[in-house]
Amino acid sequence: CCDEICLIEFESETEAMASAYEKLMDRVRNVGRLGSIEQLLDWDQEIHMPTRGADARAEQLALIAGLSHEQFTADETGNLLVSAEANDECASANLRETKRSYDRAVKIPTALVKEIAHASSLAKHAWTKARETDTFSTFAPHLSKLIDLKKQVADRIGFETEAYDALMDEFEPGATAAEVEVLFASFREFTVGLINRLKDAPSPPDASILARHYPKDAQVPLCRMFAESIGFDFSAGRSDVSVHPFCTTIGGAGDVRITTRYWENFLPAALFGTLHEAGHGLYEQGLLAEHAFTPMGEAVSLGIHESQSRLWENLVGRSLPFWKCHFEKVQQTFPDALGDVSLDAFYGAINAVAPSMIRVEADEVTYNLHIILRFEIERALFTDKLDVSDVPAAWNEKMNAFFGITPKNDSEGCLQDIHWSMGAFGYFPTYALGNLYAAQFFEKAREDISDLDDRIAKGDHAPLLGWLRENIHRHGKRYAAGELVERVTGKPLSIEPFKAYISSKVEAVYGL
Amino acid sequence: CCDEICLIEFESETEAMASAYEKLMDRVRNVGRLGSIEQLLDWDQEIHMPTRGADARAEQLALIAGLSHEQFTADETGNLLVSAEANDECASANLRETKRSYDRAVKIPTALVKEIAHASSLAKHAWTKARETDTFSTFAPHLSKLIDLKKQVADRIGFETEAYDALMDEFEPGATAAEVEVLFASFREFTVGLINRLKDAPSPPDASILARHYPKDAQVPLCRMFAESIGFDFSAGRSDVSVHPFCTTIGGAGDVRITTRYWENFLPAALFGTLHEAGHGLYEQGLLAEHAFTPMGEAVSLGIHESQSRLWENLVGRSLPFWKCHFEKVQQTFPDALGDVSLDAFYGAINAVAPSMIRVEADEVTYNLHIILRFEIERALFTDKLDVSDVPAAWNEKMNAFFGITPKNDSEGCLQDIHWSMGAFGYFPTYALGNLYAAQFFEKAREDISDLDDRIAKGDHAPLLGWLRENIHRHGKRYAAGELVERVTGKPLSIEPFKAYISSKVEAVYGL
Repeated sequence: CCDEICLIEFESETEAMASAYEKLMDRVRNVGRLGSIEQLLDWDQEIHMPTRGADARAEQLALIAGLSHEQFTADETGNLLVSAEANDECASANLRETKRSYDRAVKIPTALVKEIAHASSLAKHAWTKARETDTFSTFAPHLSKLIDLKKQVADRIGFETEAYDALMDEFEPGATAAEVEVLFASFREFTVGLINRLKDAPSPPDASILARHYPKDAQVPLCRMFAESIGFDFSAGRSDVSVHPFCTTIGGAGDVRITTRYWENFLPAALFGTLHEAGHGLYEQGLLAEHAFTPMGEAVSLGIHESQSRLWENLVGRSLPFWKCHFEKVQQTFPDALGDVSLDAFYGAINAVAPSMIRVEADEVTYNLHIILRFEIERALFTDKLDVSDVPAAWNEKMNAFFGITPKNDSEGCLQDIHWSMGAFGYFPTYALGNLYAAQFFEKAREDISDLDDRIAKGDHAPLLGWLRENIHRHGKRYAAGELVERVTGKPLSIEPFKAYISSKVEAVYGL
Repeated sequence: CCDEICLIEFESETEAMASAYEKLMDRVRNVGRLGSIEQLLDWDQEIHMPTRGADARAEQLALIAGLSHEQFTADETGNLLVSAEANDECASANLRETKRSYDRAVKIPTALVKEIAHASSLAKHAWTKARETDTFSTFAPHLSKLIDLKKQVADRIGFETEAYDALMDEFEPGATAAEVEVLFASFREFTVGLINRLKDAPSPPDASILARHYPKDAQVPLCRMFAESIGFDFSAGRSDVSVHPFCTTIGGAGDVRITTRYWENFLPAALFGTLHEAGHGLYEQGLLAEHAFTPMGEAVSLGIHESQSRLWENLVGRSLPFWKCHFEKVQQTFPDALGDVSLDAFYGAINAVAPSMIRVEADEVTYNLHIILRFEIERALFTDKLDVSDVPAAWNEKMNAFFGITPKNDSEGCLQDIHWSMGAFGYFPTYALGNLYAAQFFEKAREDISDLDDRIAKGDHAPLLGWLRENIHRHGKRYAAGELVERVTGKPLSIEPFKAYISSKVEAVYGL
């Protein structure tokens, strides 16, 4: 009977003797846990919450966000950061990243945080209305307001060259607009060139076969099989249905949840959507449990996260070896839709390139142009080279220059994405960076795993997943994104691996 | 653009000017919201969480429980309680109940709370093992420890007559062991007498028809139909599958969730389980949104809560009018199982009385004896009239005296319920009190709604639900349980309504 009493006394003693570093990490872990509870509240809201639960849910989310902010920005956090000492590399990384987040958090006054939350709540309603009525002017004052507030954020956080850097830093720490500009300039030139070359290709693929009828009930087990095949662990995660697919981490590496949407007249939505979200999920499941809820147990950046989803979705999922393994099964699953389709025709269809208005439906080549367009417009807005009222004209002009097409209205033009209404400026570039990281990582993985294509063709994804776990996942935030890329591939980030990968694939598909 | 800024300034001003009562209620609401977030973490754990998420979930639950306790027992709560003034009856009730909870909470030191949590965690493991190996001695020391700790709790909270009162007070505020003893003594005598009379009844019903094959896929929509039929609002709730059925409130009256289990060889499990949990759910959905997360928006007590579930499950759900309306539909749903069964035979089967070892499977008559047995044993333990080591013997002796049967081992005897391993002493009586409250409320409802049986026979439950909403649900914790019963029925709680109800039903079924 004494055991319990002693244990409690022992705990108190341990607490008193704990080092400043350990006390700091306890705080950080609790803040991380509050964040994961927010994820559950969000996940449930998307998937299960009854409609009339919305008001209480908004209050619960605000409460947790407030408590989390309060705990993290408390003076005690700052004091512990001053006195904490790192005894090893992991602790150094945890201290570095905690300090980074803390410095950001305390620089932004609570009133400004609340004002942004309030303004973006209004902006989301206005954006929805503007899309419905196709009137950019309904959204414009809200966009101006959010840009103004985000400029205030950038000013408070501070930056060397331009405000946009401070905003990107939230999503892709260390990235600067100037560097991204250089990268994207040649990326844009290459992409526009490739698209133009495809116009006169001798054997363009027929993507219409993907729009045949694919019964949902047959898609569900197939998608689960694909997720399991690449290594997603359903004892440490689950998959559900939602309107917009996403991946969320509810309880560290042990509880990672993805969602999918099933479209009966467009097979890629669920198929590649699942591979994409499961790719995000593999990263989260590959973070080390011992570092859960500390920076060492968190993903490096949004760009690196996106590299993991795009690697599985595209580099693996749209590759010929992958379909050599899986096409027969998919054909058997949908005999009506695919009975008359060859492996080569299917492979061509899933790699077809076609300029389109909407980013989220874009193919692997044109997708990046959609991102570059948004980056150029966002940056111009934050350097005052573009006025909010001129956004629709600038958008349409760039659509024409990049793709040779013009949106018929702003709803399929500059109003298509939700990001701006949420005040998320500097977020879009991470999508294209993810594609570049993915190609560079994959090129190196292929060097290191000599029989990689053969393994994939046999449905054996363990070597590749093992390589990603070893080189990327297990490190958490140990290295910044740029440092990680150099350590893993021996080179700084470049567009060359992506160019080589996409050119050879698309040229083969189009018979160039 | 000025609107948002003004709004924020206005909010701050409002906060500064808020009365002590309003500030106190803000605290109380936040504590309530944290409690509802715990409910979501629990609900998700039962229904969706992958197995490897368990460790992180335990930490999340402990974190929220700790934050909630910290916020509620903070000095500021006590200070506001001293200075807060009530301007109306609602505020009076909120203050009275907040003070009650606060006084309880601050009387129990955190170390004792932690010790109980730790001891009951160990006890749950020991209980599971004791059941598996059928060795009460494995569980006995843990039971002793928990009784000892709960005596400490009772001492700290204080009581007039005996420690058991202080424990019951957590679940059924105001109830005393002495009062319950008087009530239960005549309840026991009546019930044992009724069971004995049934032994020689001329036409006992045949309950075996309920154990035929009832396909799960057919049960699911039927159960949903029953829940909707009695008024459960699926836009403010949902129904899922879990091992043990329960009802939980995730977001005030707007998000109330029930669960069901489907047994293909026992129709009542899902059918009456759904009516029971939906009955709990109707109470929660009937609490007023304007009082959400304050005592005025909470159920009176566990006993009153159970009265709502038992009223719909039994007083309505096992009544002849109800089945006059629904039997044909159920018969059509299960033609193989019920094709040869008459309405009268079905009605008899769902009202059959048979002594059994296990409480949760007991019928409407014998169920109460299971509760009375536990009350007598618990109370003897807390008055030191019974030693823990003698619990199995006392249990078996009472089983024999009450039912004329003896458990073949302790697993189907004194080890069958989880409650003691959780340290929940004083909880069981609320189950039987619920049955008594239910009968007394229903008797009054029948007086007030002259055509109640006809309405039920037409599937129209709106008059009854409206009556419950008006007389019970909307009041939240405005009145204590005893006061509520007197206000609604004009009489203090008595066993007479239950006696009259059950005797007339069972005698008719058995042809007495």
